[in-house]
Amino acid sequence: MEIEAGELLKKINTPADLKQLSQAELVKLCSELRQYIIDTVSVHGGHFAASLGVVELTVALHYVLNTPYDQLVWDVGHQAYGHKILTGRREVFHTNRMLGGISGFPKRGESEYDTFGVGHSSTSISAALGMAVASNYKGETDRQHVAVIGDGAMTAGMAFEALNHAGIEKSNLLVILNDNCMSIDPNVGALKDYLTSITTSRSWNRFRDDIAHVLTKISEIGPDALGIAKKIEKSIKGTLLKNSNLFESLNFRYFGPVDGHDVKRLIHTLDDLRDIPGPKLLHCITVKGKGYALAEKDQTTWHAPGLFDKITGEIKKSKNDKPVAPKYQDVFGHTLVELAEKNDKILGITPAMPSGSSMNIMMKAMPDRAFDVGIAEQHAVTFSAGLATQGMVPFCNIYSSFMQRAYDQVIHDVAIQNLHVVFCLDRAGIAGADGPTHHGAYDLAYMRCIPNLTVAAPMNEEELRNLMFTAQQEGMGPFVIRYPRGQGVMPDWRRPLNAVAVGKGRKLCDGEELALLSIGHVGNEAVKARITLNEEGIFPAHYDLRFVKPLDADLLHEVFSKFKKIVTIEDGCIQGGMGSAVLEFMADHGYQATVVRLGIPDTVVEHGEQHELWSICGYDSSHIINTVRNMAISRKTDTMVS
Amino acid sequence: MEIEAGELLKKINTPADLKQLSQAELVKLCSELRQYIIDTVSVHGGHFAASLGVVELTVALHYVLNTPYDQLVWDVGHQAYGHKILTGRREVFHTNRMLGGISGFPKRGESEYDTFGVGHSSTSISAALGMAVASNYKGETDRQHVAVIGDGAMTAGMAFEALNHAGIEKSNLLVILNDNCMSIDPNVGALKDYLTSITTSRSWNRFRDDIAHVLTKISEIGPDALGIAKKIEKSIKGTLLKNSNLFESLNFRYFGPVDGHDVKRLIHTLDDLRDIPGPKLLHCITVKGKGYALAEKDQTTWHAPGLFDKITGEIKKSKNDKPVAPKYQDVFGHTLVELAEKNDKILGITPAMPSGSSMNIMMKAMPDRAFDVGIAEQHAVTFSAGLATQGMVPFCNIYSSFMQRAYDQVIHDVAIQNLHVVFCLDRAGIAGADGPTHHGAYDLAYMRCIPNLTVAAPMNEEELRNLMFTAQQEGMGPFVIRYPRGQGVMPDWRRPLNAVAVGKGRKLCDGEELALLSIGHVGNEAVKARITLNEEGIFPAHYDLRFVKPLDADLLHEVFSKFKKIVTIEDGCIQGGMGSAVLEFMADHGYQATVVRLGIPDTVVEHGEQHELWSICGYDSSHIINTVRNMAISRKTDTMVS
Repeated sequence: MEIEAGELLKKINTPADLKQLSQAELVKLCSELRQYIIDTVSVHGGHFAASLGVVELTVALHYVLNTPYDQLVWDVGHQAYGHKILTGRREVFHTNRMLGGISGFPKRGESEYDTFGVGHSSTSISAALGMAVASNYKGETDRQHVAVIGDGAMTAGMAFEALNHAGIEKSNLLVILNDNCMSIDPNVGALKDYLTSITTSRSWNRFRDDIAHVLTKISEIGPDALGIAKKIEKSIKGTLLKNSNLFESLNFRYFGPVDGHDVKRLIHTLDDLRDIPGPKLLHCITVKGKGYALAEKDQTTWHAPGLFDKITGEIKKSKNDKPVAPKYQDVFGHTLVELAEKNDKILGITPAMPSGSSMNIMMKAMPDRAFDVGIAEQHAVTFSAGLATQGMVPFCNIYSSFMQRAYDQVIHDVAIQNLHVVFCLDRAGIAGADGPTHHGAYDLAYMRCIPNLTVAAPMNEEELRNLMFTAQQEGMGPFVIRYPRGQGVMPDWRRPLNAVAVGKGRKLCDGEELALLSIGHVGNEAVKARITLNEEGIFPAHYDLRFVKPLDADLLHEVFSKFKKIVTIEDGCIQGGMGSAVLEFMADHGYQATVVRLGIPDTVVEHGEQHELWSICGYDSSHIINTVRNMAISRKTDTMVS
Repeated sequence: MEIEAGELLKKINTPADLKQLSQAELVKLCSELRQYIIDTVSVHGGHFAASLGVVELTVALHYVLNTPYDQLVWDVGHQAYGHKILTGRREVFHTNRMLGGISGFPKRGESEYDTFGVGHSSTSISAALGMAVASNYKGETDRQHVAVIGDGAMTAGMAFEALNHAGIEKSNLLVILNDNCMSIDPNVGALKDYLTSITTSRSWNRFRDDIAHVLTKISEIGPDALGIAKKIEKSIKGTLLKNSNLFESLNFRYFGPVDGHDVKRLIHTLDDLRDIPGPKLLHCITVKGKGYALAEKDQTTWHAPGLFDKITGEIKKSKNDKPVAPKYQDVFGHTLVELAEKNDKILGITPAMPSGSSMNIMMKAMPDRAFDVGIAEQHAVTFSAGLATQGMVPFCNIYSSFMQRAYDQVIHDVAIQNLHVVFCLDRAGIAGADGPTHHGAYDLAYMRCIPNLTVAAPMNEEELRNLMFTAQQEGMGPFVIRYPRGQGVMPDWRRPLNAVAVGKGRKLCDGEELALLSIGHVGNEAVKARITLNEEGIFPAHYDLRFVKPLDADLLHEVFSKFKKIVTIEDGCIQGGMGSAVLEFMADHGYQATVVRLGIPDTVVEHGEQHELWSICGYDSSHIINTVRNMAISRKTDTMVS
């Protein structure tokens, strides 16, 4: 469904059109742009509050800059909807995040205005600095390079690494700190407090002016005072002024804070900044969800609310007559509290994903035992390792694709030291509409090569609970549990907790000729496939491997002894994944069999609904059915006739 | 060879013994400890300058703290030799870094005083904070937690992430910033300049006192002045004093700078700090290499000089009558300059490893085209991605095990966007004496599962040059070249540059019955093995796969068509590595063969010489010979008789 744009917005097809507007019209345009985002997201879904917060900033940037020659890098990209709409994608904006539609994040392949693809946080300063240094090298000294980064994203280490480097490069780099006190959840950490203190106290620049003024006044009092004034001035200038702001410590020139919703003031400021060379930071105060009252009030809920009635603000729930299975993340959240009530060594750690991981359930129930450490996956893992050295049992919950940020810490700080940290990897496998940056495609491959780790994936809610119960038991080492985004399959999921034998899979059903070997939730697709296949007279066996490390040798000996045709099924990359582990077992034990591996192929899988992408990747039930049909020789005669 | 310790040092078997000494004796002990390190390292090798720089700090810490109850975490661990010697390992210190000897880094399994294993940088604050939070949780409020971190390590993002979190925890955490202006090479970045400016300007604490004093004086002038003074005081207190130091911005109390070589003053200061609750940072100025004049003067060379004459300072070179093959790293360094001279798009990037990677060759030859970005692997990769978006061809050189730090950036910023960044992974495979934290064991496994990447490993110097030449050609995407620590095999390595077909391996020799499939330098072990095997009448074929991604399908079809017995050989983990990729090919194309995979097994491989560890892991020439012998049926009769 296409959405009607306001009369000014209708005419904006490129930023050049924007430059034709008067400042008064720009104010109106902001309002139309905001409405267009509300209208579209309410019926098509997507990220919401972040883009509302930067409407004025987006308009001002494209008004002042000469994009795409000047280079604008959006950090994370949740907030880039306005940017997309203003840069030629208004009419396709309703396809946002849909299969075949535009991406929910900036994407280089989509537009020359999208200078750098994003999705994960805190990459923008590094990328923009790279662009700026390249421009320097090429002699393009007039070219502007702007990174827009949130205060949440600023807590991640790589943003600091980039500031540290940028501070010594003489590049034309402007970092805009979009300070709204939020990540997806409220932002945390000392930096947040610091930014608040800059903001709530008087402006640093005004203070600097004041000091100069006051010193002049003192010196007017008389010769004694003059001497003192000079002394104080020298001290302040020498020790303080140069280094007294955190960003100025890193050799950035700091400007602000400015009101991020005053488009005229922003244009004025950005225009001034164009002429100032070197690394500079503009501190811009915005309100996430600005202009939509409910979103301003509950920014976490309205980060990505799903579909909603834009008038009443009622968030629509999917209609379903069947009892609804819970989200895996909620099973994690509730089970963690249940376990922690009985085991006082359990602590919870999330890097800025309390609501996304449902760690907020523990944070509410046991506030002193659950830690949101900010967007800081590396620290989250090593902090957990530190806790584990003291006999604690940290449950560190990190999205599978974000865990890529802490890969070294898993190896270096946890696995090599064989520390008892439980990693719960949410959003493992195909993540859906968030697309390639968010698919947790590689974890089985990148985890199973690490010594000392146990790596498991539950097929359903009960399995997740039992794996969590198992993982917290005394004497365990590092333990990885990966599970997908979205719902499980068990409405009656609150079942008693039972330990699972580490490295032991399950036989789900016996069969003939061919065996299905699945791991994780995608095993339910194999269950569906079996029903159809059985009707056709094909009766594959089905095993849930459950652990990709250690492998269940007994189970695999049984499989390879009984079956010469095997289909492995995983919601993960087939290079190096579970199927690959099964091939290693086969080779190591001298078995010969035809093994077909179904999983995420060796390509960048774009965005779309999970089930659409499972189908594209070839491991949903219908592809499993086809694969088995093609491999199976023997069918019951009656079914062959039908 | 055991080294004679000084008379005081002889008596120190635990830190308790230290506490019996007078302050004057402590000064003497420092001198003996320093001498003991010089004496031992000069004849046994190891890291050198870093430990000399913290002799006084080490003595003071163990004197003031109640270790191991109080917890001391050394960052990186190069500097922990003094710590090891004072905590019961003096008599085994001469086994440092040797197979079966003590580790060159703190290691939990080795001593209860080693609270956290290290090797990579910048983990100490996270780990110590974890310990401190656990102590808090357990009610051990008297317990001290100290992280000692260098100014180089402070540039890495995870240190900042940890500071940001620590600033809001009320834990008993002391961070000691060991500021010597060095990483292995001179430290870089804005933070370094900032620390220098703190140090060279007057002490911040003294300035704060001064301000108070001056304000009092102003107010004494008269009522007018009093008003002004109050105004200025309010401004300074409200806006500045709380937040004016970078660390204080993050809610740490900042102390220092102090002279890190004044053991008495250090003891006094550390004693005072014990009573101050909450997060605090002590800025400690030290000289890397302190007390050994040559090391103080050339700190990079003396970071880990190898064996040397402690009197003359002459660094011993290994005696070798044969013409010496170069180090792979030097082939990289010289070839990069050679390529960059012809291709002005090439830039070089190193995260704080100019000498270790030999990027210093380019930094010297083309200072405006090579960038040391600090200990900041994440930023290095995304900065490279930013450069690549502008048509540059960045060669980003990162040790294989350090690349684990930038895994997400490789996937998210380079691979998904298919950007032309060339990654050169030095120290791939078994790294040797640095041990488990430094082995580049996993790269083939964790890289080959990522779409769009090309992943190659050269078997010798000429191959490295040709792969680099190939990788920089226009139209390439992300390209990974991994090669080991140490020397190659070609004294005459400066050969003309030739392009290699991407994804094409080499047949090194035809053979009978069995094929060896190797990748990388370890292929030379297979060459050695062939000589012996040929003498025994066994003639295996030998293929150098060269690329683990994309695989050479033609070559593998030939191998699997001709041979039913295959041995894969790689200097990398066998889970998910090259051999695993070969098994996938076999399964995908319906071949049946016996495949034996040789490589790094699924355990933590400890430290030792490379060739010792290759043997332990089972893929040096003698193990290849044994493997082939066991698999081969047919031998020439005459050899069987012999």
